[in-house]
Amino acid sequence: MTVHEKLSALRKLMEKENLDAYIVSGTDPHNSEYLPAGWKQREWISGFTGSFGTVVVLKEEAGLWTDSRYFIQAEKQLQNTGIQLHKLRVQDAIDYPDWLAAILPENSRIGLDSFCTSVCDMKNLQAKLAPKGIKIVDKNELIGDIWTDRPALPEEKLFLISSDTTGKSASDKIKMVQGILSENNADYFVFSALDEIAWLYNIRCNDIEYNPVAICYAIVGRDNSWLFVKRSKVTKEVEEALRQVNIEVRDYHHLFLFLNEIEKGAVFCADTNNLNFAVYNKIVSSFVVTEVVSPIILAKSIKTPEEIEGFRKACVKDSVAMTKFFYWLESNIDNQLTETIVSEKLTTLRAQDKDYVSNSFENISAYGMNAALPHYSAVPGADSVLEPKGLYLVDSGGQYTHGTTDITRTVPLGELTLLEKEDYTIVLKGMIALSRSIFPKGTRGCNIDAIARQPMWQTLRNFGHGTGHGIGFFLNVHEGPQSIRQELKEQFICPGMVTSDEPGIYREGLHGIRHENMILCIPIASNEFGEWYGFETLTLCYFDTSAILPELLNQEEKDWLNNYHQMVFEKTSPYLTAKETSWLAEKTKPIS
Amino acid sequence: MTVHEKLSALRKLMEKENLDAYIVSGTDPHNSEYLPAGWKQREWISGFTGSFGTVVVLKEEAGLWTDSRYFIQAEKQLQNTGIQLHKLRVQDAIDYPDWLAAILPENSRIGLDSFCTSVCDMKNLQAKLAPKGIKIVDKNELIGDIWTDRPALPEEKLFLISSDTTGKSASDKIKMVQGILSENNADYFVFSALDEIAWLYNIRCNDIEYNPVAICYAIVGRDNSWLFVKRSKVTKEVEEALRQVNIEVRDYHHLFLFLNEIEKGAVFCADTNNLNFAVYNKIVSSFVVTEVVSPIILAKSIKTPEEIEGFRKACVKDSVAMTKFFYWLESNIDNQLTETIVSEKLTTLRAQDKDYVSNSFENISAYGMNAALPHYSAVPGADSVLEPKGLYLVDSGGQYTHGTTDITRTVPLGELTLLEKEDYTIVLKGMIALSRSIFPKGTRGCNIDAIARQPMWQTLRNFGHGTGHGIGFFLNVHEGPQSIRQELKEQFICPGMVTSDEPGIYREGLHGIRHENMILCIPIASNEFGEWYGFETLTLCYFDTSAILPELLNQEEKDWLNNYHQMVFEKTSPYLTAKETSWLAEKTKPIS
Repeated sequence: MTVHEKLSALRKLMEKENLDAYIVSGTDPHNSEYLPAGWKQREWISGFTGSFGTVVVLKEEAGLWTDSRYFIQAEKQLQNTGIQLHKLRVQDAIDYPDWLAAILPENSRIGLDSFCTSVCDMKNLQAKLAPKGIKIVDKNELIGDIWTDRPALPEEKLFLISSDTTGKSASDKIKMVQGILSENNADYFVFSALDEIAWLYNIRCNDIEYNPVAICYAIVGRDNSWLFVKRSKVTKEVEEALRQVNIEVRDYHHLFLFLNEIEKGAVFCADTNNLNFAVYNKIVSSFVVTEVVSPIILAKSIKTPEEIEGFRKACVKDSVAMTKFFYWLESNIDNQLTETIVSEKLTTLRAQDKDYVSNSFENISAYGMNAALPHYSAVPGADSVLEPKGLYLVDSGGQYTHGTTDITRTVPLGELTLLEKEDYTIVLKGMIALSRSIFPKGTRGCNIDAIARQPMWQTLRNFGHGTGHGIGFFLNVHEGPQSIRQELKEQFICPGMVTSDEPGIYREGLHGIRHENMILCIPIASNEFGEWYGFETLTLCYFDTSAILPELLNQEEKDWLNNYHQMVFEKTSPYLTAKETSWLAEKTKPIS
Repeated sequence: MTVHEKLSALRKLMEKENLDAYIVSGTDPHNSEYLPAGWKQREWISGFTGSFGTVVVLKEEAGLWTDSRYFIQAEKQLQNTGIQLHKLRVQDAIDYPDWLAAILPENSRIGLDSFCTSVCDMKNLQAKLAPKGIKIVDKNELIGDIWTDRPALPEEKLFLISSDTTGKSASDKIKMVQGILSENNADYFVFSALDEIAWLYNIRCNDIEYNPVAICYAIVGRDNSWLFVKRSKVTKEVEEALRQVNIEVRDYHHLFLFLNEIEKGAVFCADTNNLNFAVYNKIVSSFVVTEVVSPIILAKSIKTPEEIEGFRKACVKDSVAMTKFFYWLESNIDNQLTETIVSEKLTTLRAQDKDYVSNSFENISAYGMNAALPHYSAVPGADSVLEPKGLYLVDSGGQYTHGTTDITRTVPLGELTLLEKEDYTIVLKGMIALSRSIFPKGTRGCNIDAIARQPMWQTLRNFGHGTGHGIGFFLNVHEGPQSIRQELKEQFICPGMVTSDEPGIYREGLHGIRHENMILCIPIASNEFGEWYGFETLTLCYFDTSAILPELLNQEEKDWLNNYHQMVFEKTSPYLTAKETSWLAEKTKPIS
């Protein structure tokens, strides 16, 4: 079916249901960023493959709302679909709730899938549309009715990870949640975010590409806990191990049946920022609901010493793969390599490790001007051939059983323009500035984001994405609650948090540069001014000094880089061949 | 009366009124920072003279809540009063509403003055106390009943300032407000913030020390406007001039009478962040109230070209006074000068200008370890004598009819310790970093605060106050909506805003250093990355280079300082004596 055919099929159903608009959500019942195939409804109907976006279909028109990461990609993918791009996170941006409130006549009817809409989004919609008497109608089955070859839910097996690896047992984590129940005089806490449940029960699975999680819900009670997951995914051994810590397994589709069994009037805690509206509606109709921010979000972000050790090991492995990759790339640059071929080579090298499970996201392998799209996705056949000139950007990461990685390097393939070298050096200055920063306890990500941007801003350059996102432990490569970006967020940066440090500069039609390391917040000192935190750099891969304009670096930056390169060589060369080692020795030679 | 006597008199009244607690507000009916004498209720009852603080009196105990600016001062002033200090803006701080909610039994009764309580504070109190059934009772007269020599409201005459000076007529400003009324389908906008009304009607007065405002309310209707002010303060000429622009004068105490005349059901706009609860209660009982952020706050902060020109002139005058002052100080350092004597000398020098109206706040004249209190107030007799060693800090400003100033300099009076020089240089680095910063349109103050703090943080130093506050035009020296500080605030820094740039380092028992310039946000450039803003430094006074450790400054910082000093010399030396000029030439010599 073409997008036109899909839209017209949907519009027929809308007419039958007397709907003036239908909202096709970009997420799943678990508010996931990456979705299993069967929930890629928005991608299916529009052809837009970005990780963030919502489609709204009206009788005569349709729109997609997404942010600056995807403007260029969306414009391409929406061409001739009849779906118009609406830009978010730009000046005077109008999000779809306001747009619908402005464009729809009074008393219109809007349909949506309440499982794929968070409580928070639903309440926002209702608040915007109620003044015009616009009704929001739960029509979960509409896309399913026309999506005839919709993939079924995955059958991957659930597995456990030990508390030797995570540093905390499921029992201890459940106890922490039960403490929150006590504090709130509540009986149950319902969880729907897949990475939160994976963390809580020390379980992992491969239901979603790149995210080692299982599609499930969880409920923690005062004495017992429940996991709602497709029964066929749970082996007898795993079920028994879960039972040992008072976790009972129920079927994914029996959540509502289970809720029916619970005494009316029980008190439920729920985090309505990510809980879906269908489940919320179910519990609020029978129980008292106390809205509480999920305590797992912060707890999960503060890595245990065991997890930190795992991250360090993963970063050595990752850097070894990256070094082997760049060595291979330099040796084969004249072989008409395409972006997808080199990307596959990198995955092959990463996959050689015994603890490698999968990539942690889709490799971004972008040559030349393609790298100007921060989230470029190379498609075989339509991708570029690497030439011995200009810059090549690769943003990639691995899921290892002992940690998740995320690294970006931009490397010269031959001669560079002065502008490429300037941008390369300035981005590096920004990345180093954040790595070297020291800040007092109680500092938020939005307070220090400018530290990475300063070298860029002073030369009138900038980038349109955040500088840093939290990284899960053998979990999602993007996690909260912390971030390092301009947008205001109260969360402090705390010791134990692992965050990316990835400034960039993108010039449409020319080049894109991003340097990304993973950094761990650590305590640095304590004095009469308070407690001081800083960062330990976890990622261990060289930056190509031939692309640097040394006159743009100050002595502190050169010292940082030289020390870093020394550490990179020491920690990774034991795993390289003799040829690779002498090559890396060249790459990590001090600059002056 | 001693504080003990006052508290016991209040407790007797509380018993009579069956109150378990009484809240003594630190503000007036206009949510002012600086108060006329008659509204200094909190100062009267507690003896604490800081600009921010609330006292709560219980049957058996009493507390004062204030922030880190005043911890040392409050501890001193509260000694032996029986009032306990509660620290705000520290970790685990508990503000008085939460404290009351925790400490009072169910169904207690709390009294307060609803005129001196903002709607916002009242709603917060109610929300915290309602769950325990605690009742808040309006007892405006309690302090008045025991404060027998309470000063009456001031009789100062109102005067007008021309639109040649402000760049905008009262008519144009009123039209802007009427536009907001139309947008909100509203009939009236009620204003209670004194500086907002002064700006709106182009009026000034001397009712409050340091703030050239009148005690008044204002109401803007669709066609007419009203000013509620003590009639005796308005001359016939001023009344006639106001009538020309459809502003009718009514008595300050006739606001409620006037409201009684308005048709029931009219729609009022009000900014409940600063409106007092008594007035809000009055309008909400008869009218529809739409809560709108006062449009004056932002409009007032974006200075007109005429106002900017006025600021520039004021800064030259101010700097001339400061230079003459420091010349005099250096020449007389051996004369046993006290902090208060030199402070008076500075005021005398500033007052020599024909357009000088008053100081813009109480001079902070602090020698040696006294300067470690960021808001130190020297008291004659109890103040220090300046000696030819160590550092002297002076934070002062003037109200000129064409602009308000605020400047801090810390100068060496003789030999300095290495730590003093280090701190002096590091604070200067912070101040320069913010001055030199460039940032994209859409950047908030909390996004760039760290730029000033970076040099401090990197050496494990910090300061406990904001880096910058907005400055009014011949109005309050502290104004919103912008600020440059760590606390999250959505307001962007926009061209035309005048803000202070005043980092510091304070070491209890040793010394305090602050360098403060006024900076004007200006557009810098526009390119493919967007629009770029930066700052023009308005303040024009030398920094003593003999206190600098040049090895701690990088070349950019030295260049900035040398260029700045050249500008200071060029713009101010024409107004100095020959001796002063050659002295300033020495002080502004380039460093290398």
